[in-house]
Amino acid sequence: MLGRIWRLLIGPVLSTRRARHERLPVLLALPVFASDALSSSAYATEEMMLVLWSAGEDALRLAFPISLAVVALLFIVVFSYRQTVYAYPQGGGAFIVSRENLGEFWGVLAASALLVGYVLTVAVSIAAGVNAIISAFPALLPYRLSLCVLFIALMTYINLRGARESGLVFAPPTYGFVLTFAILILVGLARGFAGDIQPAPYPPYGEGAQALSLLVILTAFARGCSALTGVEAISDGVPAFKSPESRNAALTLLLMALILAGLVLGITYTASYFQVLPVKNEQGEIIETLTSRLARTVLEGTPFEWFYYIVQAATTLILILAANTAYVDFPRLSSVLANARFAPRQLANLGDRLVFNNGIILLGLLSALLIIYFRGDTHSLIPLYAVGVFIGFTLSQAGMARRFARLKPPRWRIGMLISGFGAFTTGLVFMTQLVANFRYGAWITLVSIGVLMFLLFKVHEHYMTIKAQLKPKPSEPQPVRHRVLVLVPSVHQGVLQALNYARALAHPDEIEALHINVDPRPPAVYRRVLKRTKDEETELRLVTPAAEKMQQEWRQFVPDIPLKIIDSEHRSLVEPIEDYIDELIEQEQLDQVTVIIPEFYPRKWWHHLLHNQSAWILRLALMKKPKVVVSTVRYFLER
Amino acid sequence: MLGRIWRLLIGPVLSTRRARHERLPVLLALPVFASDALSSSAYATEEMMLVLWSAGEDALRLAFPISLAVVALLFIVVFSYRQTVYAYPQGGGAFIVSRENLGEFWGVLAASALLVGYVLTVAVSIAAGVNAIISAFPALLPYRLSLCVLFIALMTYINLRGARESGLVFAPPTYGFVLTFAILILVGLARGFAGDIQPAPYPPYGEGAQALSLLVILTAFARGCSALTGVEAISDGVPAFKSPESRNAALTLLLMALILAGLVLGITYTASYFQVLPVKNEQGEIIETLTSRLARTVLEGTPFEWFYYIVQAATTLILILAANTAYVDFPRLSSVLANARFAPRQLANLGDRLVFNNGIILLGLLSALLIIYFRGDTHSLIPLYAVGVFIGFTLSQAGMARRFARLKPPRWRIGMLISGFGAFTTGLVFMTQLVANFRYGAWITLVSIGVLMFLLFKVHEHYMTIKAQLKPKPSEPQPVRHRVLVLVPSVHQGVLQALNYARALAHPDEIEALHINVDPRPPAVYRRVLKRTKDEETELRLVTPAAEKMQQEWRQFVPDIPLKIIDSEHRSLVEPIEDYIDELIEQEQLDQVTVIIPEFYPRKWWHHLLHNQSAWILRLALMKKPKVVVSTVRYFLER
Repeated sequence: MLGRIWRLLIGPVLSTRRARHERLPVLLALPVFASDALSSSAYATEEMMLVLWSAGEDALRLAFPISLAVVALLFIVVFSYRQTVYAYPQGGGAFIVSRENLGEFWGVLAASALLVGYVLTVAVSIAAGVNAIISAFPALLPYRLSLCVLFIALMTYINLRGARESGLVFAPPTYGFVLTFAILILVGLARGFAGDIQPAPYPPYGEGAQALSLLVILTAFARGCSALTGVEAISDGVPAFKSPESRNAALTLLLMALILAGLVLGITYTASYFQVLPVKNEQGEIIETLTSRLARTVLEGTPFEWFYYIVQAATTLILILAANTAYVDFPRLSSVLANARFAPRQLANLGDRLVFNNGIILLGLLSALLIIYFRGDTHSLIPLYAVGVFIGFTLSQAGMARRFARLKPPRWRIGMLISGFGAFTTGLVFMTQLVANFRYGAWITLVSIGVLMFLLFKVHEHYMTIKAQLKPKPSEPQPVRHRVLVLVPSVHQGVLQALNYARALAHPDEIEALHINVDPRPPAVYRRVLKRTKDEETELRLVTPAAEKMQQEWRQFVPDIPLKIIDSEHRSLVEPIEDYIDELIEQEQLDQVTVIIPEFYPRKWWHHLLHNQSAWILRLALMKKPKVVVSTVRYFLER
Repeated sequence: MLGRIWRLLIGPVLSTRRARHERLPVLLALPVFASDALSSSAYATEEMMLVLWSAGEDALRLAFPISLAVVALLFIVVFSYRQTVYAYPQGGGAFIVSRENLGEFWGVLAASALLVGYVLTVAVSIAAGVNAIISAFPALLPYRLSLCVLFIALMTYINLRGARESGLVFAPPTYGFVLTFAILILVGLARGFAGDIQPAPYPPYGEGAQALSLLVILTAFARGCSALTGVEAISDGVPAFKSPESRNAALTLLLMALILAGLVLGITYTASYFQVLPVKNEQGEIIETLTSRLARTVLEGTPFEWFYYIVQAATTLILILAANTAYVDFPRLSSVLANARFAPRQLANLGDRLVFNNGIILLGLLSALLIIYFRGDTHSLIPLYAVGVFIGFTLSQAGMARRFARLKPPRWRIGMLISGFGAFTTGLVFMTQLVANFRYGAWITLVSIGVLMFLLFKVHEHYMTIKAQLKPKPSEPQPVRHRVLVLVPSVHQGVLQALNYARALAHPDEIEALHINVDPRPPAVYRRVLKRTKDEETELRLVTPAAEKMQQEWRQFVPDIPLKIIDSEHRSLVEPIEDYIDELIEQEQLDQVTVIIPEFYPRKWWHHLLHNQSAWILRLALMKKPKVVVSTVRYFLER
């Protein structure tokens, strides 16, 4: 029943043969792999300017210079990653690169940072996407959290059905986003230089304003670095490119960097020029984003005010695509970890629709929890986000530097210099992130990564212990001393069938039949019987009438196997049976006992509620005993 | 772990031998069996007067006459029941009497009415008990519902531990209650006749007042009849009396009737005399009960105002005892029904503490739900209560009348007359209840009884069908065509051990080993392998490297049994195995297949999360197949 509903929702099972990917040319690969990185421009400037704003109007003049620094960093990272895509044409994510070159510990660290990062990608992107919707339709403000959760549920569902990473699906929203923002920035600059719009003065910050200090500048830089999140995606997906894979990937990487740089610089410059800031309400919640304000300012008074809604729609769409990237990468990395025996095996199972169901569900749950905890507030989530991403950057590039030193390919000195410089810079930025954002939540990311690493290693250790224990040892098949024990609740057709089965497994001499007398009579009647006795002896004979009736019936139907009847003083089935088995194993020096539990199999599901409770309890108790194998022999009822 | 916590809370297991009951002399039997009936006087007058109040001050003059009618009915019922205790010295509840004399249908109807009645007894008694507490401490008003649920939880817990129906425990609160109210009534009458207290005028009813009509009077009478609830208890418990059981029981019945009549008449008379009514707040909730008002009025201005708290404490205690009666009777009746195969077997299990755990838990849940639904309001619960009780009265007495007619014992005409008259009167009152209370909730009781009857018959039918199917048929033990199928996830020590076990069950020729190749490789890698092939043929050979490696390893460790490897196109384990088994059974004309699933048994509970998921899924799928017996062979890990 449940299975059928699942099938209806998720769609029919797909054959493994259908797991083919398209090979993407550069122009289609760009939208697939760059949506995550490009979408960051929707919030990076905002986060940077929010920090500067708190230090007053003068500090906001630093926004553009800081964005220049961010872009410089972007190019350092991108040039370093271009080397990775050449070195790893089969795909070189941070996990693979650092595990191969720096060792297992660093690989697991990178994997943990990536996994935590994916969860944050979903949370931040969805929260920012919902912010874009709310900016356009302020009436939806009270439903912010519900919208976030709804979107996550929707994305989880779509990905369980198996969304294809199709270039044709990704191209329109990604290029649409780039194009809309290009138009917006150009129109803005033109109108600005023509003196068509007069910048309004900055609104005051309100409570919590502070003096401009180095820490403020570093924090603004650190927040601005959220623009770099998602840059690493291409290095992981080289095999999906059209041949020559590495060259195309490197080209895409460069294109992406140029577009992203244009967006970040353009948005920051125009926003600074028009003195635009996000709008907060009295509770300090952001109710309109910076890009939304920017679009309104630029388009105000023109006949193209409707274009504002296009801008918001494009922003929302690309942010949702970005979240989708995490939905593809998180389950994939989890399955890689599971196959390397670092994560539970369930995460390695390819589901009916050729996706890793469990990973998708896990990601959906974790990001929903995160977004609920932070009430869908992008501004609180960003400080958690970048710190993990920069761990990945640093490890990946350090790994590359190490690789050059190790393998010494042609021109390895230059390569090592680029990667080494990249690792050094991103490492420095990681430290900056840590210092600047620690108390704003970066510590949560660090703790999560630490806990995750611990768990991964713990799981790995367990699987390795087991692997060692399970190593097959060649040995002669030895004769097994074996008994079959049939449990007899009463003499009925199901028991007779179970006995027949037992006879197929063993000689009648090796079969035992056991009945436990729990006396279900209510105390009022029981008391009357007991009254007449004084000592144990007579009491033992007391149960005889019922037991003897059973013995007679038994002998009539089962002449070849004797029935043992044991009284259970405490009305428990389990303990006397356990005791009996223990004794049997010890006395007869057995290697194995097969316990046969006869059970009815009723025709309707609700009939199960009326039967077999004791069979369940028995199975649970007996499965803990070595040398005991429990076999349930079912008697299928016809009516 | 959970088991240990349960044991700690519930106490150690008790031996069946300890299931003895004390034999009660009349003076100790009275409190045990009469607490339910006597406690009704705490709310019967209140309910009656509330109805009359709505028809104005004049209508309230009818309170005492109506209570006389109630008492008259009480004696009719009691005289009829005196005959029952003589006829059924082994205990004659409504279920037994009507089943034996009127037939199965009426017996099940009586049982359903009784079960529903017990749930209502708990709900009404606990709600009324909490009302008594709130009357004394109005600050607790906001916690009414929480207090009700707390009391139910507490009673469920105490009864799971196994509360003894001890006369010595019941005597103080029951006699205490009778004594306090006797004092209260006598002091009240004395002060009233002495002119010490002037009756205050009745407060106006407020909204919803109506004209005095026959329906109002009948409704008041119907509500007043709630005083009779619990009267039937003695007839069920005759065996618990000291010898001569029946005579002592009849005597107790009479004593109880006299005391109850005194209480009802006394409370109604004094309340009418002082013109006392319960206090309602603006929401129409009763915030002080009639008996509490009565006690305050009588004691006001005397040096014995503290006695008020004694009255309230005694009221609360006896109401809780009354609820406890249901906690003993509901599980007992359920177990009788279960043993007669009308209720699920679980209800017949005598628990560790010699009580019927499942019945107690069920009662607790149902009454808690009821009390939550009615927000702990006695006034809404009473209309549901009496109607079911009167079904029991009517059936029980009709059964007795039928019995006299059938068995014709000495002086059977008089007996039949008494019982017949009782049945007629209570039947009439049942109709009155139905008409007067139908729209106030009596329909809920009727529907519940109807649904319950349907369920009981449905369960009975099912058990009877099964019994017929399970009737053992004598037959020669036939040779069984049997195969053992060992499922092989990979070649490891656990599988080798499972094979060893299989060899104990069957000859190597009858053992098959099966591996399902689900190819857990992620699509990115898989694709590359598939790319090189065009037709099915080559693809089939594709899996060969891994499969061949496995075959080699297999042959090394298991020379005598060949391994079959099947590719699973949809990565599912279950379907190919099911198909294989179906084919095997058909081809080889098998009677039975034993499927051996090797499983690890890890040392720590959380390790289970990392293993054996597919074993679980397989077991669930295969248990639906006839002719298949699933055996899980566990390999116990040492580390």
